[in-house]
Amino acid sequence: MEHFSTDFRAGLHDLMRWRRDVRHFATDPVDEALVTQCLDTFHLAPSVGLSEPWRIIRVASDTARHAALENFKAANADALAGYSGDQAALYASLKLSGMQDAPEQLAIYCDDGTEKGHGLGAGTMPEMRRYSVVGAINLMWLTARAHGLGLGWVSVLDPDRLNRDLDVPEGWSLVAYLCMGWPRVNTVTPELETQGWEARASHLHVERR
Amino acid sequence: MEHFSTDFRAGLHDLMRWRRDVRHFATDPVDEALVTQCLDTFHLAPSVGLSEPWRIIRVASDTARHAALENFKAANADALAGYSGDQAALYASLKLSGMQDAPEQLAIYCDDGTEKGHGLGAGTMPEMRRYSVVGAINLMWLTARAHGLGLGWVSVLDPDRLNRDLDVPEGWSLVAYLCMGWPRVNTVTPELETQGWEARASHLHVERR
Repeated sequence: MEHFSTDFRAGLHDLMRWRRDVRHFATDPVDEALVTQCLDTFHLAPSVGLSEPWRIIRVASDTARHAALENFKAANADALAGYSGDQAALYASLKLSGMQDAPEQLAIYCDDGTEKGHGLGAGTMPEMRRYSVVGAINLMWLTARAHGLGLGWVSVLDPDRLNRDLDVPEGWSLVAYLCMGWPRVNTVTPELETQGWEARASHLHVERR
Repeated sequence: MEHFSTDFRAGLHDLMRWRRDVRHFATDPVDEALVTQCLDTFHLAPSVGLSEPWRIIRVASDTARHAALENFKAANADALAGYSGDQAALYASLKLSGMQDAPEQLAIYCDDGTEKGHGLGAGTMPEMRRYSVVGAINLMWLTARAHGLGLGWVSVLDPDRLNRDLDVPEGWSLVAYLCMGWPRVNTVTPELETQGWEARASHLHVERR
């Protein structure tokens, strides 16, 4: 069905409003079938030249999770050291990852050297492969939220260290470390806004040429 | 409303199936209110540290459009030169942009130097700002499709040349050149698959650590 109703469009708008970066998860497990359904969203995502360069690592073992959490803690301490005064105090009070609780954790990679797609569309802008992975993640985010699941994107990580710890193939680049699970709270307001770090802009920057 | 029905989820899945990269556009204009509604999707998109680094240029003048089209033609000729034999013939037959017809054309940039968000989450992975822009584009893509609009992402372009031609501020990086308008055909099959360039994978690459 290629036509979408006014009701559906209103629902889509709602879905995007309720999609949040979640850092507070219940520890309840997520059904394997639901995880698969979320991951299947990747099949529907656009990719440059149909290269489908996404590679997914489910970070499941205690060892792998511990390494990722230690990585985050070190990167977060470094980041904190870059702020001072009130801003440092505020930064220190923020919860920037749900890695301690989230039942599902995914490291999402891009295979920059994939032959799939025969390089089409990635000649002048090779970053298009990584952008394709980012797009797919955003679609999965919506699918997860439509099922009531929360997703949190952790970027306070040293990618090289994670690659070593996860023994990732040569040529893959980290795009995202995702926490997934049942959110403790649902809200339409970003946590960084509630906590006073930054507010959403009311105005979109549009120029004309 | 934070709960989503089975019907809505089926509609979301349909929407993602019908979202395609469109290169064949009718020349009919798109209502200004609808363009605005699509662009407003940016306000709902996640961004690292709430940095909202997206900057939008509506490429509207004949001069700017001509420059972008010439840029595409040159980059496309260079890309063609990288293929040989049957693959070159096939590449030459592909339509990789709707720039000649699409009534709306947008150059989407990332302001890598924005102070908004105070650098949060972008210390070890500064590319997160550009990834935020990519995510927002993918949400807009769904909004457009829900209204029956098609969107085509052109990446066969020399970004530096486009930046000069559009007189873009220092520190902005091109993320996407988008064509938007009414698609001539609606389909669930990617054009690159129909034309035999590449097929979608049936299997998702998932590993466990």
